[in-house]
Amino acid sequence: MSAYHPLTNEESIVLARAIPGFFREGAELDCREIGDGNLNLVFHIRDTESGKSIIIKQALPYAKVVGESWPLSLDRARIEREALQIQHHLCSNLVPEVYSYDDEMAVTVMEDLSDFTIMRHALIEGKTFPHFADHIGAFIARTLFFTSDLAMDPRAKKEQVQRFINPDLCKITEDLIFDDPYKLSDNNNYPAVIEDEAEALRTDAALHLEVALLREKFLTRTEALLHGDLHTGSIFITEESTKVIDPEFAYYGPMGFDIGAVIANLLLNLAGQIGWKADEADRRRHQNWLLQTSLDVWSKFEAEFRKLWDEHAVDPLAHAPGYQDLYIQKVLQDAVGFAGAKMIRRIVGLSHVADIDTIPDETQRERAQRLALSVGKALILNCRKISSIAAIDDIVRTTATDRGETL
Amino acid sequence: MSAYHPLTNEESIVLARAIPGFFREGAELDCREIGDGNLNLVFHIRDTESGKSIIIKQALPYAKVVGESWPLSLDRARIEREALQIQHHLCSNLVPEVYSYDDEMAVTVMEDLSDFTIMRHALIEGKTFPHFADHIGAFIARTLFFTSDLAMDPRAKKEQVQRFINPDLCKITEDLIFDDPYKLSDNNNYPAVIEDEAEALRTDAALHLEVALLREKFLTRTEALLHGDLHTGSIFITEESTKVIDPEFAYYGPMGFDIGAVIANLLLNLAGQIGWKADEADRRRHQNWLLQTSLDVWSKFEAEFRKLWDEHAVDPLAHAPGYQDLYIQKVLQDAVGFAGAKMIRRIVGLSHVADIDTIPDETQRERAQRLALSVGKALILNCRKISSIAAIDDIVRTTATDRGETL
Repeated sequence: MSAYHPLTNEESIVLARAIPGFFREGAELDCREIGDGNLNLVFHIRDTESGKSIIIKQALPYAKVVGESWPLSLDRARIEREALQIQHHLCSNLVPEVYSYDDEMAVTVMEDLSDFTIMRHALIEGKTFPHFADHIGAFIARTLFFTSDLAMDPRAKKEQVQRFINPDLCKITEDLIFDDPYKLSDNNNYPAVIEDEAEALRTDAALHLEVALLREKFLTRTEALLHGDLHTGSIFITEESTKVIDPEFAYYGPMGFDIGAVIANLLLNLAGQIGWKADEADRRRHQNWLLQTSLDVWSKFEAEFRKLWDEHAVDPLAHAPGYQDLYIQKVLQDAVGFAGAKMIRRIVGLSHVADIDTIPDETQRERAQRLALSVGKALILNCRKISSIAAIDDIVRTTATDRGETL
Repeated sequence: MSAYHPLTNEESIVLARAIPGFFREGAELDCREIGDGNLNLVFHIRDTESGKSIIIKQALPYAKVVGESWPLSLDRARIEREALQIQHHLCSNLVPEVYSYDDEMAVTVMEDLSDFTIMRHALIEGKTFPHFADHIGAFIARTLFFTSDLAMDPRAKKEQVQRFINPDLCKITEDLIFDDPYKLSDNNNYPAVIEDEAEALRTDAALHLEVALLREKFLTRTEALLHGDLHTGSIFITEESTKVIDPEFAYYGPMGFDIGAVIANLLLNLAGQIGWKADEADRRRHQNWLLQTSLDVWSKFEAEFRKLWDEHAVDPLAHAPGYQDLYIQKVLQDAVGFAGAKMIRRIVGLSHVADIDTIPDETQRERAQRLALSVGKALILNCRKISSIAAIDDIVRTTATDRGETL
């Protein structure tokens, strides 16, 4: 295969057969394109007899996210593939394995996760996952710590920063999360019934200040190699196992961004449960599991991150008394602020979440939207004052009560 | 000229003649190598009849700063040349013009500043420069503002960050400023008589915490394209004019670092005046000019930066109420901390300043060293509490008084 072109099913099968020792000689391979076609082609290739399978992902040179197409660098396939390899190296049980790749064709051949469910869908159905907080806390702690100056030679880290400069994908985040929701923009997307909320976002000066500070952090802090888009649609899950996929937004940014993404998506689902669980006790039980899991994600991250720091930090001043505590507090405050920004953009911005948008009943959907916006705003407005994760519990419960919702 | 090799005088003259329209056809050109040979060759080429002259600077593939040679990337010549061009574009009267360059040969041909004096030498001689604060304040404000996300398209800024990743030169700063002075290191260099001060630096936990925070900022904040080594040896000056040279340490870092460098070098000279000015009234007058100029550098920077922000900011949230004030306060606190770190390393670290090291009288030299260290520590220990530049005045005066020195 020479110059870049979109793969055919036949070419995908040829790539699949080329993985050394994976498929049997002469195996009959079935190939289906299963992507949504917005940003990437995704081929699922399966040995019809043994059932063994792989995924081939190919980046497309555009995104269809804004109605018409938006050009996107194919280099993002290399960035995603390198990020997957680094994350797999650091958390082999939590990230799919890359079998082979072709950067010119923007192609990555990787482990298939067909046995897993997309976490967002499972959460909408009211499922809970007892190991999720442990798994994702460890993933975040290990991938952030080991790619930071705390654990890397600063020269090697700078070369890694350079390889992960990701302007096209960062621009999507900068526009959709840190700009559009706070002004009139054709990219915004919300029902007329919450125009009052949207207008309030555009005129809230205190909120604009905090979002400006969060935006600045996203633009200027090369703390660690982030996943960059760690929502529950990028997490494949079973009762026992968790896998993090799709790091095409990977770049060096502020650690709190990845943690905030996980918390935001748990809390969006919490708001969405207003429209999903008919039985109130059942609904409240699930919402409380989601809230507790948000806190646990942080706690597991913090415990693991502190342990890694104590055992593996190479920064010559890492053990200065008080430094670790101040560092953790900064990450917590950032995580809370970013969580809020990510909740708001999923309600009024371009790209939404099924947890809320697919709620069948209009009134319940509106209640969920208003609760999500209120929680998002409260997280942003309080993030610089927070010194413990318990504050999130308090903010969510107080905001819900103020809105007449009971958790 | 093909592959990299150190230039000869004859080759330098050929390069000089190739600048279109600069030297007369057939002019007799005199060439002298005037560098100190540590990091670069510097050729001064002059038309013996008209007196017109240029400088040719060539990077060497090593540094002699640590006794034996230390390999250094030749790419730093490209970085220095691109930084000079950006800074000249933004401040044409404050930066020498680049006439031509050859990245493969690590060569830059540029405006000669033979009419200027190196500011450090002039300050040691007790000279004052009434326009210096205005000039350097404008240089810092314009170069930092226009290379930041406040004024650039974030995509173009990211590509610029990528071009200015400068691991070799940053490592020098990271080791010599943010590491060695706080531990036993062969790189450290100070007289036995101040061993008590050196030991105090190695055991001061509160200081280590603040230096850890400053080091982290140096490692992780891509706020603006810094000069990166803005001491008074990188500033050429006359009564009327100021020129900033040698940005080979340029990289994207925290804005306060450049401002702190200027302030540190003014305050090092202030401490050094203990050994230079015999007449006490004269000494105190000069020290007070240096202190006032430190404050003025900040004030000019701040006024110009705020004006540029009001008139030219493109960041969509730049005008959020309160954001500019918080931003300026962060830069001030960083500048004060970095100033302190730079003072300390010039007393106990590898590389010193003539302002203090060449003081003839040993007792006076020691007094100057102790004053510089005390001021440096006080700046670092107080930096996170500072909210106005007047605090520097207070810190310097109080520290001097505590040491029995009168300003």
